[in-house]
Amino acid sequence: MAKKTRARPSKRRTGKSGASAVLKAVIEDLVIGNRILYVQDVVDSYGHISARHPHDPQRFLMSRARAPGLVISADIMEFGLDGELVRADERPVYSERFIHSEVYKARPDVNAVVHSHSPTVVPFSVTQVPLRPIRAAFFYPEVPVFDTRAAAGWTNLLVSTPALGKALAQTLGQNSVALMRGHGNVVVAPTVRTVVYRAIYTEANAKLLLQAKMLGGPITYLAPEEAALMDKEQVRHRPGHGSDRTWEMWKQEALARTGKLR
Amino acid sequence: MAKKTRARPSKRRTGKSGASAVLKAVIEDLVIGNRILYVQDVVDSYGHISARHPHDPQRFLMSRARAPGLVISADIMEFGLDGELVRADERPVYSERFIHSEVYKARPDVNAVVHSHSPTVVPFSVTQVPLRPIRAAFFYPEVPVFDTRAAAGWTNLLVSTPALGKALAQTLGQNSVALMRGHGNVVVAPTVRTVVYRAIYTEANAKLLLQAKMLGGPITYLAPEEAALMDKEQVRHRPGHGSDRTWEMWKQEALARTGKLR
Amino acid sequence: MAKKTRARPSKRRTGKSGASAVLKAVIEDLVIGNRILYVQDVVDSYGHISARHPHDPQRFLMSRARAPGLVISADIMEFGLDGELVRADERPVYSERFIHSEVYKARPDVNAVVHSHSPTVVPFSVTQVPLRPIRAAFFYPEVPVFDTRAAAGWTNLLVSTPALGKALAQTLGQNSVALMRGHGNVVVAPTVRTVVYRAIYTEANAKLLLQAKMLGGPITYLAPEEAALMDKEQVRHRPGHGSDRTWEMWKQEALARTGKLR
Amino acid sequence: MAKKTRARPSKRRTGKSGASAVLKAVIEDLVIGNRILYVQDVVDSYGHISARHPHDPQRFLMSRARAPGLVISADIMEFGLDGELVRADERPVYSERFIHSEVYKARPDVNAVVHSHSPTVVPFSVTQVPLRPIRAAFFYPEVPVFDTRAAAGWTNLLVSTPALGKALAQTLGQNSVALMRGHGNVVVAPTVRTVVYRAIYTEANAKLLLQAKMLGGPITYLAPEEAALMDKEQVRHRPGHGSDRTWEMWKQEALARTGKLR
Repeated sequence: MAKKTRARPSKRRTGKSGASAVLKAVIEDLVIGNRILYVQDVVDSYGHISARHPHDPQRFLMSRARAPGLVISADIMEFGLDGELVRADERPVYSERFIHSEVYKARPDVNAVVHSHSPTVVPFSVTQVPLRPIRAAFFYPEVPVFDTRAAAGWTNLLVSTPALGKALAQTLGQNSVALMRGHGNVVVAPTVRTVVYRAIYTEANAKLLLQAKMLGGPITYLAPEEAALMDKEQVRHRPGHGSDRTWEMWKQEALARTGKLR
Repeated sequence: MAKKTRARPSKRRTGKSGASAVLKAVIEDLVIGNRILYVQDVVDSYGHISARHPHDPQRFLMSRARAPGLVISADIMEFGLDGELVRADERPVYSERFIHSEVYKARPDVNAVVHSHSPTVVPFSVTQVPLRPIRAAFFYPEVPVFDTRAAAGWTNLLVSTPALGKALAQTLGQNSVALMRGHGNVVVAPTVRTVVYRAIYTEANAKLLLQAKMLGGPITYLAPEEAALMDKEQVRHRPGHGSDRTWEMWKQEALARTGKLR
Repeated sequence: MAKKTRARPSKRRTGKSGASAVLKAVIEDLVIGNRILYVQDVVDSYGHISARHPHDPQRFLMSRARAPGLVISADIMEFGLDGELVRADERPVYSERFIHSEVYKARPDVNAVVHSHSPTVVPFSVTQVPLRPIRAAFFYPEVPVFDTRAAAGWTNLLVSTPALGKALAQTLGQNSVALMRGHGNVVVAPTVRTVVYRAIYTEANAKLLLQAKMLGGPITYLAPEEAALMDKEQVRHRPGHGSDRTWEMWKQEALARTGKLR
Repeated sequence: MAKKTRARPSKRRTGKSGASAVLKAVIEDLVIGNRILYVQDVVDSYGHISARHPHDPQRFLMSRARAPGLVISADIMEFGLDGELVRADERPVYSERFIHSEVYKARPDVNAVVHSHSPTVVPFSVTQVPLRPIRAAFFYPEVPVFDTRAAAGWTNLLVSTPALGKALAQTLGQNSVALMRGHGNVVVAPTVRTVVYRAIYTEANAKLLLQAKMLGGPITYLAPEEAALMDKEQVRHRPGHGSDRTWEMWKQEALARTGKLR
């Protein structure tokens, strides 16, 4: 359908017709980000990534309910900050879209959100061992743990209401990562490329910390002072550096394995 | 051969000739399920998946003795609930088909069974550490351990008789998963897609639990109340949700890696 | 060169020209076995597999010195039981061919040998934890550990002389697997397909045992009585069962990933 | 562009035009080495490999700032031993090129350097457990740990100045590997093929040691006497042996997965 709409000239800015170059770029990054997170084993068939609408901070963009490894640009929908669809659409939506909507509400600095069950992070959500930074500078100030049980008693663990999303956003606070007990984690960043970077290195740091724990003895964590200097570097986005370098590689791998974007 | 039979018009419902659309759909899911379990590393060259016959609860469908990653639709055979072939066939059959036959006998609610040696589950079968749920809601009431040694003394560990199958089914009881000491596990569900889902997340949960154990200290398991709410959600089968979402992804991966279904 | 020789009619049984169907089959299995061991992560660029010559028990067949994942049938050479080349050949040979020659000398029941550095087995060679069977029935009577240091003092750890090969064969005794300290292991069997099977499940059992150790507490090993019954089953070679089933799968994977055999 | 330049006859030895066969061979190995390190999971999108210029020991060759898995021959640049570009070039350069420049200054025996974050090595950099040799002979005399904190206080951990590079080179001393706390490691060797070999087996040895630690109890390390004999063998470079055998395999895998070299 989206294709038909695009073919007909239209005055209204519906769907992707008439989309600005900036919006198109965000949507493309979002689709590639879905694929990267799948190919890099951060998400399996579950988990999702969203981006704040570049022209309207009260909206965000996210795929219809679908495995991230299969998402194409026609799957991207627009949502308002109460998690509602901006335009009527029959296609299924993620029941946990409130993770995204409430984080965008609470954090004007955030333009991209990933929710995943990335495998080595989950064990930290069900033990008393804090997920501390060995290499992931963006773990400061801390990586808090959200538990639906504390927020709402017995649930199916899904953040499927605005109230649960709000409670999660409160636990996240001004941090970049929050764990969700027995479930997964949420990662936030100023851009799609940075949130993908952070989601991948959240998993990587969890693996490093698990292994360091297995070796035993005291662990030298990244100092907050070091982390601050590193993070400044990582969000600078110089060509060939930081997430610009990783994006080129991850994108090639993702497209080679999962096919075309539309 | 199967192809030849199909080509000739036939009154008798032999093989897949004259198969109803429902039966064809179950067989297709079964073949795809074989491939998925292989590609997702739940089975290697051993292990098998079966489905109860959609038109006759006294029969079930399963491949001839073959590595699951190679199964095509012509490999699917029909068995009765004593593990006997419904039609004479020279091709080798799984010696452990009694796992399936006896579970179908004991559990009218079950329409699909997976037996696998999924790698991270086996260690739980030979230690005293119970396989408890971190994310796998269907582990409740419990994941019992079946031991051929307790049931029949010294054996080759294969469940290759109706008596051993019956003993295993008794250990399984009303649960969804039972471990088999030094061997593997059996997973059951109302549908092929759900049993594939459960087999994959049984392995995933075993990995999470092993890692949580390595981190040390107390572990917050899924509460039975939470699990009940989650499981209700997972068996609902809404388009784009639960095992519908995972199936689309896993199917694409499985076919890309293992080729055509017939 | 081998190709040229084959093209010219020749009375002498040099190379593969004039090779019997039996010999051709063994060579084909050997080449496929090389590829399988690589694709299944038992060998990396090192390690080797050999087969006793089907027509002359005083000879064995093995690739020239080359990474197993690249071996083609023209690479297969003939050696005598002192590790010497049967025919003059300029191509480099494995310096550890004496592992094979001395095992064939000492064990008339053995027709195939694998030497590998399979990754999870090595840790058992440098600790006091014996590699005991969780699923690998062929670990009985035991898995001894050979140490070049005990046999010959300071060496480069390579079994590169008949004397070291003989010492290793003595440590192996009547067992099917022996570890080599800080180096790897040797696995033996009556056929190429069985030795490939055993090499792969030696690694698999090491992984299971490592994980069971990590879970902690007592471990229920396979009893010798159970292992004897299992092993009888596994060496029976019925179509669709045992290593016949695994070979079909592994062969397909190996050829898909590593290309043609000649 | 490089192609155009090459087409025109030129007297000056600029870029790769007029490059000698020796230089071309080093550049080809360097490009393949980049790809191998990526495909063998030693580097992800970060990390780099360099080679001393074969005709001028005061220069070294390294890619522009780019993910190693994507490097082509046109990406290779020339640097002086203060880390400066030999020829003006607008393309971004690795900020950690001083790791390479200072090692080449301090170690005339070294002709190739790898810096990576190879995943299982990092945990050894943040714990008190020394990375000792189970199979990696080149770990002798020792594997020291460099910490930017000791050398320069709070930094972003990057070795992005000559002073930090010099401090790292001093910690490395006459060893072949040094760890960098919370960051990665540096590996050096007489040739590109050997440094790739060492970087890969540094990661492999870290995995073996981690697993041996998990098994518990005393560990038999490679003795210095054994290591000396092994290392002599490994740097000999006979056709079909040592890094010659591994290079053929790794190269084929790397090109199959990452494409053409230019």
